[in-house]
Amino acid sequence: MKPTIKDVARMAKVSISTVSRVMNAPETVAESKRARVLQAIEELQYQPNALAQGLISKKSNTLGVLIPDIRNPYYSDVIRGMEDAAKLLGYSLLICNTDRDEERLISYLENFYVKQVDGIIFASDFLRSSYYEAIQRLQFPAVLVSTSSTDFEIPSVQVDEEQAGYDAVRHLIEYGHRNIGMICFPLDGSVSGPPRYEGFVRALRENGLEQYSTCVEFADQWFEEAYEAAAKLFTKHPDLTAVFTASDEFAMGVISYLADQGISVPGQVSVIGFDNIRMAHIVIPKLTTIAQPVYQMGHMAVEKLHELITTGSVKVLRESVPHQLIVRDSTRSILSGNSTI
Amino acid sequence: MKPTIKDVARMAKVSISTVSRVMNAPETVAESKRARVLQAIEELQYQPNALAQGLISKKSNTLGVLIPDIRNPYYSDVIRGMEDAAKLLGYSLLICNTDRDEERLISYLENFYVKQVDGIIFASDFLRSSYYEAIQRLQFPAVLVSTSSTDFEIPSVQVDEEQAGYDAVRHLIEYGHRNIGMICFPLDGSVSGPPRYEGFVRALRENGLEQYSTCVEFADQWFEEAYEAAAKLFTKHPDLTAVFTASDEFAMGVISYLADQGISVPGQVSVIGFDNIRMAHIVIPKLTTIAQPVYQMGHMAVEKLHELITTGSVKVLRESVPHQLIVRDSTRSILSGNSTI
Repeated sequence: MKPTIKDVARMAKVSISTVSRVMNAPETVAESKRARVLQAIEELQYQPNALAQGLISKKSNTLGVLIPDIRNPYYSDVIRGMEDAAKLLGYSLLICNTDRDEERLISYLENFYVKQVDGIIFASDFLRSSYYEAIQRLQFPAVLVSTSSTDFEIPSVQVDEEQAGYDAVRHLIEYGHRNIGMICFPLDGSVSGPPRYEGFVRALRENGLEQYSTCVEFADQWFEEAYEAAAKLFTKHPDLTAVFTASDEFAMGVISYLADQGISVPGQVSVIGFDNIRMAHIVIPKLTTIAQPVYQMGHMAVEKLHELITTGSVKVLRESVPHQLIVRDSTRSILSGNSTI
Repeated sequence: MKPTIKDVARMAKVSISTVSRVMNAPETVAESKRARVLQAIEELQYQPNALAQGLISKKSNTLGVLIPDIRNPYYSDVIRGMEDAAKLLGYSLLICNTDRDEERLISYLENFYVKQVDGIIFASDFLRSSYYEAIQRLQFPAVLVSTSSTDFEIPSVQVDEEQAGYDAVRHLIEYGHRNIGMICFPLDGSVSGPPRYEGFVRALRENGLEQYSTCVEFADQWFEEAYEAAAKLFTKHPDLTAVFTASDEFAMGVISYLADQGISVPGQVSVIGFDNIRMAHIVIPKLTTIAQPVYQMGHMAVEKLHELITTGSVKVLRESVPHQLIVRDSTRSILSGNSTI
């Protein structure tokens, strides 16, 4: 017969509620008792019933994760970090693709509520007030990753998006480029669009290049969209010698467009990406990019959510993580002395 | 006050067990009653408690998914298909990276048991007898995707791996290549290694090229491993003019190695990949590859698991899905008349 929590309590000579606490809040149980309980669990090969356990502890040890689309390699790196942290802390992850669709997202939140997840992580999307209200109404502890909110008091893990955009464009300027365009996320309703564009504009302005701030086209997420945006950008501005793209996926789309036009990167046009996704150092040409510590960001987001769930608050509300310029083969200096193609 | 299942039953003028059946097995309830219950649920804005609901129905409406590593774009495409099917059928997915590690995998299976998942999907790994025994012991309905088992009677969704490998190599031979090598998954303990290698050898043999069947090096999963394997392959066999790689990720690693050696693809060496991952048509050069219908395979695997959970059996045990040769820019014909570089 399968052992029950009563059998464990009897063997360990403690109360049933102590066994329950060892499983759900071990830090509240004295070391000696905890050891006895764990030994009894092991000897009896006791497996708690997760559903019954949930009814006792009100914990499901499950976290809900909302990401725009798992096929984007940026998110799969973030999720890998989340998963490793979750495993360490004893959680499972329920991962859902929102497609940045409001209705779909709210329906997932309600599903998380039905499944009684302990908390949620919301990634890379603009936190609309309707989302925030749903999170409040359903009383979820929540953490944002690669996004943040100024309107609401909600913990987040993110790079300094504006400074990172500035650093990307400054790299192009230091390489002698003046005719610089951008492929950006939408300025309306996206998280990274506005600050990365602001970084682009600030770098242009500081160098007397304001006139290029209108050399910008937009894409949502995929290679193919960036390919189309590059077609528009270079049709309007054939004189550009460099492009800052808001993601490595966009950089790959732009480079693909230019290759199809017989324009070499970095020979004729330099391209700098953003994210340093896993394939950035393998594709041809290897991408110059702004690295985000994506795996660590996923890891930190789960740790922060765990802190929020277990203590009711977080020490640092808006966590800023460092970015880094990585120079590879997709950008080229055109300063005199380096100007041979 | 929050409405309960009793309130719903009272308003719909049915028994509590009828309400429960509407939520868990709606097909067993007469249309008219079902409509009244759904209307009452809507009017009262009733939200069932998932845990309590699970205790009644013994269903968690959650499926466990075991994949080697979510960062591999092949799996993120498969998972996207799984997720869309799961949403249609009312399931959530718990996704876990096994890293093809036996201990990690067994511990996930036990975690799935504790969480009472309704069934599991096991992707792209060799079904060891220890895994099969754990699945049997924990009484999980299970489906395999991009893998299958001849030893055990377990439903699966997969392409014809041997034929697909053969078709890839035949394409190279039809393009006039004779000095052909391969970057393969391990022949021991991997699912796709042996049949794709067998397809390679069969195509060579049929064309009197058996001697090249030893021109093979191995990699597990990543670009970087394929890059190293390519270094070994071309050091031993500098005369190769074509390489068949067991994945598009491997193809990208091989092309990166060749580029670093100043060897052009397809100018000097042709490379054919496998999978047709999302970026296959964007990278430079665009990859010639064998397409697997990955999204559909994920979708079908969830449908098959649902069939198994709800009916206790499946109509087709081993589902074979069609593959397709897609010719792009990474392979080149070297037949006379086409031999200019």
